[in-house]
Amino acid sequence: LKELRISSSLGTSTICLGPIRRSLEQLGAIQKSVLITDRNVASLYSHLFLGCRSFILSPGEESKSLSTIEKIYRKFFDWRLDRSSTVIGFGGGVVGDITGFAASTYLRGLPFILIPTTLLSQADSSVGGKTGVNFLGYKNIIGTFTLPRFVLIDPCFLQTLPEEEILNGAAEIVKHALIASPGLFRFLKKEWPRLLRKDKAVLKKAVLTSIQIKSAIVCRDGKEKGERRKLNFGHTLGHALEKSCALSHGQAVAWAMDFAARLSCRLNLLSPDDLTGILTLLKNLFPSSSSLSSSLPPKESLHAAARLDKKREAEDIRFVFLSGIGKAVVKKIPYFELERLIDDLYQSG
Amino acid sequence: LKELRISSSLGTSTICLGPIRRSLEQLGAIQKSVLITDRNVASLYSHLFLGCRSFILSPGEESKSLSTIEKIYRKFFDWRLDRSSTVIGFGGGVVGDITGFAASTYLRGLPFILIPTTLLSQADSSVGGKTGVNFLGYKNIIGTFTLPRFVLIDPCFLQTLPEEEILNGAAEIVKHALIASPGLFRFLKKEWPRLLRKDKAVLKKAVLTSIQIKSAIVCRDGKEKGERRKLNFGHTLGHALEKSCALSHGQAVAWAMDFAARLSCRLNLLSPDDLTGILTLLKNLFPSSSSLSSSLPPKESLHAAARLDKKREAEDIRFVFLSGIGKAVVKKIPYFELERLIDDLYQSG
Repeated sequence: LKELRISSSLGTSTICLGPIRRSLEQLGAIQKSVLITDRNVASLYSHLFLGCRSFILSPGEESKSLSTIEKIYRKFFDWRLDRSSTVIGFGGGVVGDITGFAASTYLRGLPFILIPTTLLSQADSSVGGKTGVNFLGYKNIIGTFTLPRFVLIDPCFLQTLPEEEILNGAAEIVKHALIASPGLFRFLKKEWPRLLRKDKAVLKKAVLTSIQIKSAIVCRDGKEKGERRKLNFGHTLGHALEKSCALSHGQAVAWAMDFAARLSCRLNLLSPDDLTGILTLLKNLFPSSSSLSSSLPPKESLHAAARLDKKREAEDIRFVFLSGIGKAVVKKIPYFELERLIDDLYQSG
Repeated sequence: LKELRISSSLGTSTICLGPIRRSLEQLGAIQKSVLITDRNVASLYSHLFLGCRSFILSPGEESKSLSTIEKIYRKFFDWRLDRSSTVIGFGGGVVGDITGFAASTYLRGLPFILIPTTLLSQADSSVGGKTGVNFLGYKNIIGTFTLPRFVLIDPCFLQTLPEEEILNGAAEIVKHALIASPGLFRFLKKEWPRLLRKDKAVLKKAVLTSIQIKSAIVCRDGKEKGERRKLNFGHTLGHALEKSCALSHGQAVAWAMDFAARLSCRLNLLSPDDLTGILTLLKNLFPSSSSLSSSLPPKESLHAAARLDKKREAEDIRFVFLSGIGKAVVKKIPYFELERLIDDLYQSG
């Protein structure tokens, strides 16, 4: 088992990479634990948790609601959980976000463990302590920053994923490369076809490098007061698009990264050569998601949705640009300026 | 203005004691703030917050529910709050607990300020970062540990309180004396009649000493992993009684402290002299709350309710005893033993 440790203002968290059975054996905690998972994961892997009391969600983003959280609180109450109990969240990003929020607010915080099963949750969302549910149609409006006690990552779960799920994770891995690692970028430039084919060695290396990058940032800035903002690269417009155009998370973030890279070049932060390299990788992975393709969303929907972004501060927004491959710059700019930049890019495209 | 600073694993918090107008002027933050308060406080003091958008609760414990929290989230959403907004909770313990929970979970945490107006909230609950709401009839089952950015304490608000509210606060002040300060105990032994008459100098000294004691403990143990458990003295059985016998918080905690002191003496932790001193002070302040008076609650209700306590760990509970005036000892004991002790004391009484 490979171990990584996060220690930040949020507390500490240990990430274990390796076969899930060995991780579970090592923790030996299944007896005192309860499980939150979804129907898809349960149907494939329920044998791993025989005898564990469990709450099974409907798969998909619709489960990320306050009413699900209240149902889970009731279960916790029926089960008489106390602070010596552990909650295990076993599934993708949705399961992890829900598990973390319910556990972090029950009895003012139960310890929880995440076992991410998708590429997105393994390479990104299970690490770093963001928990939450959607509210009034907007993503993660309600939530906390709370680190899981342990994250157990086993790449074997990735082999049963459909291509869309691989792409959702790939978008976050590309994000980590673009904001922090020229090395990961070169790796992806070469290995993207094998990543899409779910080659085990490529997936493992991409996941490990991704969480190393993210852990290091979270160690330095747990609560997104500074450097952690870089991790929002492609996510301000990405979330807006995901909502307004019903795109998958990966497609939306890929589109928004393409767009943000172009903006960065237009502002002379990013060289045209680097831009070309970035757009090429994105186009290889997401052929239909070039921001200047014909499938452009109406710009008004971008304006409107970005206005509700969590990172907003009064009339300003912190937008993440690139100043090179592996280098992000967070700039606080007035809303109207971001809107003007969006309009410009639409006209010139 | 007198200032106290808490710095713990939960973050930092500044407590300002003095005239509220001066505190507010100094912070200068009312323009970007929203207010949560209750009808009683609003009817007396709304002039302090002219122009501030506000959410007004029904007074009382019934407001401490998930449905209130959801209404507040909706307001926050309608008001387009972002992370540069500040939420002000202006009122007693209920307002503070609700404000803290809603603020700490909206956008993964908005900064909040508490302005406690009751003796209980000034001397105890506004300090230390416990937030929460009740669930299925049990107190504070859902909540977080999150420190308010500022706590603004002005003793002037205490002058309009009814006696029951003074007693609710007095119970917590006695608790702080018993677990940590022989000096405060001597002060209360002498000055309790002036405390009940709302003498300004006595109230001010009692509040200040109380929050000094509590802040020091919270600095050393933010999340109740060790020393902070001492602050639960009188609250395991107290909460149970409050629920099962419809007592006021102060009466219930006074009863439970009396009971816990007797248990401590029976276990030879506390000397009979110290016990007598403690029972006398409690009897002076709460004449009807001696644990061996005729108004004894049915012991079965104590058993049942204590079993659901948040401090429970599987078959054990951490119970707080006294080993002297100003000295608390937390012992992890099996449930059946606590039940046996309760039964013994009932029989011998």
